[in-house]
Amino acid sequence: MLTIAGIGPGKKEGMTEEVLQSLETCDCIVGYTVYTELVRGLFPDKEYYATAMTKEAERCLWAIGQARAGRDVVIVCSGDGGVYGMAGLVCELLVEDVPTENAEIDCAKDHGSAGGVTEKGRQIGGVELRILPGVTAALSGAAILGAPLANDFAVISLSDRLTPWEQIERRLRAAAEADFAICLYNPASRGRPEHLRRACGVLLESGLEADRICGVARNIGREGQACRIMTLGALRDYEADMFTTVYIGSSVTRKIGDYMVTPRGYRGWT
Amino acid sequence: MLTIAGIGPGKKEGMTEEVLQSLETCDCIVGYTVYTELVRGLFPDKEYYATAMTKEAERCLWAIGQARAGRDVVIVCSGDGGVYGMAGLVCELLVEDVPTENAEIDCAKDHGSAGGVTEKGRQIGGVELRILPGVTAALSGAAILGAPLANDFAVISLSDRLTPWEQIERRLRAAAEADFAICLYNPASRGRPEHLRRACGVLLESGLEADRICGVARNIGREGQACRIMTLGALRDYEADMFTTVYIGSSVTRKIGDYMVTPRGYRGWT
Repeated sequence: MLTIAGIGPGKKEGMTEEVLQSLETCDCIVGYTVYTELVRGLFPDKEYYATAMTKEAERCLWAIGQARAGRDVVIVCSGDGGVYGMAGLVCELLVEDVPTENAEIDCAKDHGSAGGVTEKGRQIGGVELRILPGVTAALSGAAILGAPLANDFAVISLSDRLTPWEQIERRLRAAAEADFAICLYNPASRGRPEHLRRACGVLLESGLEADRICGVARNIGREGQACRIMTLGALRDYEADMFTTVYIGSSVTRKIGDYMVTPRGYRGWT
Repeated sequence: MLTIAGIGPGKKEGMTEEVLQSLETCDCIVGYTVYTELVRGLFPDKEYYATAMTKEAERCLWAIGQARAGRDVVIVCSGDGGVYGMAGLVCELLVEDVPTENAEIDCAKDHGSAGGVTEKGRQIGGVELRILPGVTAALSGAAILGAPLANDFAVISLSDRLTPWEQIERRLRAAAEADFAICLYNPASRGRPEHLRRACGVLLESGLEADRICGVARNIGREGQACRIMTLGALRDYEADMFTTVYIGSSVTRKIGDYMVTPRGYRGWT
């Protein structure tokens, strides 16, 4: 059995029951060093296999090898393994020839077994794969700020290591023009300190006002957790780090008390 | 204390530890009848206050009244309370005068107390409010299908009860043109059986090919859970119900084995 487990922000209280159970019962826990260290405090006696960033494929191949050898392996991802996580990569690595075009598919066939694939897993590439979702940073950061994503929203990573910057800009413009609330992942890192400033510039050029309500959540679920509500103008000069998640409000987002809220109109039903 | 708790898809295994703890220790559980019934099986001895759809504001006002009277109240939301949930509405109802314009805000002030606002809550409108995030359907359905949202994505509700249809179309077009993967909430209900067909029509008009990989997840985390991968052309004729979550792939999304995957390029790092 190979399990991909989204551990949420990191603390035990933010993990789902099924993720905790998978960690308790597995033989081996695999992940990026920062995340395996979060888990090691809870399960100190497990076997761990941790590697650095950019070693994702190597680490997942190791996990696949162990699972094919009959071991019960869990790959931990921060937040949710399906959002900028390892779930997609593992599927790619499990199948020799990933299709480069869309083949004909049987549009009438169900895949999930009744009763829950999450308990059982589904066969792919010689292993039983089970993907357990988790609370991704968009949601855990939003809960600290209030409800910035309470209506339609877009999630965009500002990392251009795997996506060309032109494509990121195109998505920022589209999200601004269609009045989505926006959540930004990877607003900065050591190699890319200017990305948040550039993104804010694109949004301002796309017509967003400098007093648009924005927010940041830092160190979600960890020591030093904090959030701040600010204008888009101020966000442009904000120094984010790699533990910051950023929110751009839609045109109706407001600061209500100390909360950032995108109303959805339920209030009209009073 | 007033807590807004995202319970995920419904089963106990999909709830976070902190949500389960909040339900265990509270005096009263409030919610839409479908969700309180999911919780009642786990905590049969609690006091419940449940009302029907369109009674959201009335239900939240009741919860606020109880919290102001000193009781420990939990409002349960399916998935995450911050995504088409009650978190925003509760903030609106807690503050008498919701601003209609963006007032000046102190962009240098942190709001979250170090150590975690989720444990303590934050004052607003005379109550201590705590928002506990949960696994929203976009994530739990994606985990069944594979990893359709592994790169930038947009979340759009097809319900036009609170958003004009023109605005929904505008967001669909923008998401298609900027090559987001898209997750659709509320693809259909008794009053709106044609919304998914119309949305697929908009996406096809916006240039998406009829063989674009799409997927649906049904009854996530409940009896009858299933998923299906299909083309956009087939999705147009698919009969979704209100327990269906829909995924439109981006241009690079593929069917890999029986999984729907949007690759992110990690594989190039092998």
